[in-house]
Amino acid sequence: VGRVTSASVLRSDGSTDYFGSWQDATEAARRDLVELEYDYGPHLLPVQSQPARGMWRYSGLLPLTSEQIRYPVVVGGTPLVNSVRLQATSGMAHLLVKDETRGPTGSMKDRATALVLEHGLRNGADTVTCASSGNIATSLAVGAAACGIRAVVFVPASVGLAKLTLMLLSKATVFKVTEGYEAAFTLSNRAASHYGWLNRNTGINPMTIEAKKTVGLEIWEQLGHQVPDVVVVPVGDGPTLCGVAKAFRELVACGAATRQPRLIGVQAAGCQPLKVAWETGQLPRATATNTIADGIAVAAPVSAPQVLRDIRQSGGAFVSVTDAEMLEAIRTLAENAGLVAEPAGAAGYAGVGAAVRSGLLDSGERTVVLLTGTGLKIPNALQPVTTAREISASVEDLARELGTDA
Amino acid sequence: VGRVTSASVLRSDGSTDYFGSWQDATEAARRDLVELEYDYGPHLLPVQSQPARGMWRYSGLLPLTSEQIRYPVVVGGTPLVNSVRLQATSGMAHLLVKDETRGPTGSMKDRATALVLEHGLRNGADTVTCASSGNIATSLAVGAAACGIRAVVFVPASVGLAKLTLMLLSKATVFKVTEGYEAAFTLSNRAASHYGWLNRNTGINPMTIEAKKTVGLEIWEQLGHQVPDVVVVPVGDGPTLCGVAKAFRELVACGAATRQPRLIGVQAAGCQPLKVAWETGQLPRATATNTIADGIAVAAPVSAPQVLRDIRQSGGAFVSVTDAEMLEAIRTLAENAGLVAEPAGAAGYAGVGAAVRSGLLDSGERTVVLLTGTGLKIPNALQPVTTAREISASVEDLARELGTDA
Repeated sequence: VGRVTSASVLRSDGSTDYFGSWQDATEAARRDLVELEYDYGPHLLPVQSQPARGMWRYSGLLPLTSEQIRYPVVVGGTPLVNSVRLQATSGMAHLLVKDETRGPTGSMKDRATALVLEHGLRNGADTVTCASSGNIATSLAVGAAACGIRAVVFVPASVGLAKLTLMLLSKATVFKVTEGYEAAFTLSNRAASHYGWLNRNTGINPMTIEAKKTVGLEIWEQLGHQVPDVVVVPVGDGPTLCGVAKAFRELVACGAATRQPRLIGVQAAGCQPLKVAWETGQLPRATATNTIADGIAVAAPVSAPQVLRDIRQSGGAFVSVTDAEMLEAIRTLAENAGLVAEPAGAAGYAGVGAAVRSGLLDSGERTVVLLTGTGLKIPNALQPVTTAREISASVEDLARELGTDA
Repeated sequence: VGRVTSASVLRSDGSTDYFGSWQDATEAARRDLVELEYDYGPHLLPVQSQPARGMWRYSGLLPLTSEQIRYPVVVGGTPLVNSVRLQATSGMAHLLVKDETRGPTGSMKDRATALVLEHGLRNGADTVTCASSGNIATSLAVGAAACGIRAVVFVPASVGLAKLTLMLLSKATVFKVTEGYEAAFTLSNRAASHYGWLNRNTGINPMTIEAKKTVGLEIWEQLGHQVPDVVVVPVGDGPTLCGVAKAFRELVACGAATRQPRLIGVQAAGCQPLKVAWETGQLPRATATNTIADGIAVAAPVSAPQVLRDIRQSGGAFVSVTDAEMLEAIRTLAENAGLVAEPAGAAGYAGVGAAVRSGLLDSGERTVVLLTGTGLKIPNALQPVTTAREISASVEDLARELGTDA
């Protein structure tokens, strides 16, 4: 089991504050991301022969004492898809897709939910809260139901019907906040302080980034303890990318790897503050978002300093993709690899093309792209290009439709 | 690797025909279920130390030569959920849920699709077909896309929009058959013969039951090589139940178990021909179905003789559940275990209550219930009982809504 040796907060002015414990750091962080360090070494890595156990396989690098895991939902251990057809279509001979749609609610958020609730179960939490454009609240509602913990979630009034249905089905208390996501985020945090609820909000609870880092650790292990050249990550708020960066940084610190992959962050063209900040050195003022990719439409990302640092340190870059490119990526993933993504989930794959065209990615590089969320929850947004034909039940009619002899 | 030693067809008059190969049997079977036997023994069981590999872990008991698996989608290895809260709610102290919603398209059909397409890939199939009320066609469309095999699927005109969207997104050729499911089934089979397409229809292709049996083998292994007292299975056409029965029969034949579990089949009250046949000895004439559980609404089940035999041999029974009971089961599974089921998927859990009330199941028995399909694909049918409230972003408004002090 890992011992947390340092908890720090990188402030937006570039300074770093250190704290005695991650609880103290979280208390003082407000909206900034708390980062933990451990007593790194090979003793924190999983032993190859031990059974998989999903994300808990990497408990050595998580802030957990050695008690048995109580969280009752299986999370992590998702496939690293090696699709020859997708490689041919993309022209990327060594492209792999980390398929996070296979989580319990079909998104990578399920990892963060699991670690937050594991702490909640150990500490007797009775209520947990978050703000969310959809996937986080769905994940938290379902996970909390499995734990017998009450979830109070705050969503924008525009939240998708299917995701909302799942939250309500799991008996979460759901508030649609008239003023939108940013206001919901502030209200959720204030409610957590006011009522003493467990707070799952990213940038408040350091467990979210710690949990998300397990996706990077899995990639390394699934590649046979190798580091890919590039990892392509959809970026909204940022912690997913920070989690991947931290995974490989810690593998180096543990002596298990000698280098980190280049990280390419992908934003939606209709909401790209981090790409702008990376290009101009200045985070733009938050404006209205204009994209179908609600999962990465974050106008005021909480972890901007860390994301920009991690992209820079990895020698990486940002690209942006249009809604049309994301829809095209959804179709390409489905047609060629049987992978069903939502727009934000497909943004990574769309970004691969954008990065190649911009000269930021070479088609021969061993590239892992994160597919972060399933399309199953938003069927109406998927817009297939073909249609179903209605026929009567005769082989003759079928032959006519197919243009063959009966 | 297992060697198939016998391929037989149990006819509806009670006679059994034997064939030299499963291909010959399939050719002659028409709509009857082909059943395979192997050279049973411990050599067909997985070695405990070998890595999991999903359903391919049980290749020894599948009709496959020892080539490497080509099917590019990870299938099987689903969780056996031990939910203390669900046990308390149901009053079943030793209840476990086999969560088949974690497959690539969220249903147990993904196992059958995988084995059919694995054979297709080995034999150079270019087109595969099926008829389906929804889940099979979705599974086949997505799986075939991953293989680069064309899927031509026949569905009733009433097919759900979300499932249809997934089929089309994966570039399947989809025909809505005006006359409904039974006509679609006949047309799909005729088209397969006419065009020489690979036929994934249940009761035509023996791979479907062979694949589904892996769920039973997993239950046995996840229980630490133990056989549960009872397995509760939603039943439409029947092969899922036959697959589970065959799994435990083969474990006994291999010397790995000394008994089989009792099997309880669950049908929808609005379509229960097998329950009627079990009670009266006579399969009723097919009539219109009247249930929200499209996945088990099969008026003329193809594998009636086998299902009735397997229920009888296991000492089991049939129960039926109403639509209201399935909706209640959906809510109970979500609220207590974070499991999101569709009506047919939740029928098994609903059937646990029905079986206890009928004296067919004792609350102390070690019972595994199959949750066969996800609710993510049919959000509009889930009908949660709570609603979301819209509030403005102030702690005062929140406190008023929660009935607490601000």
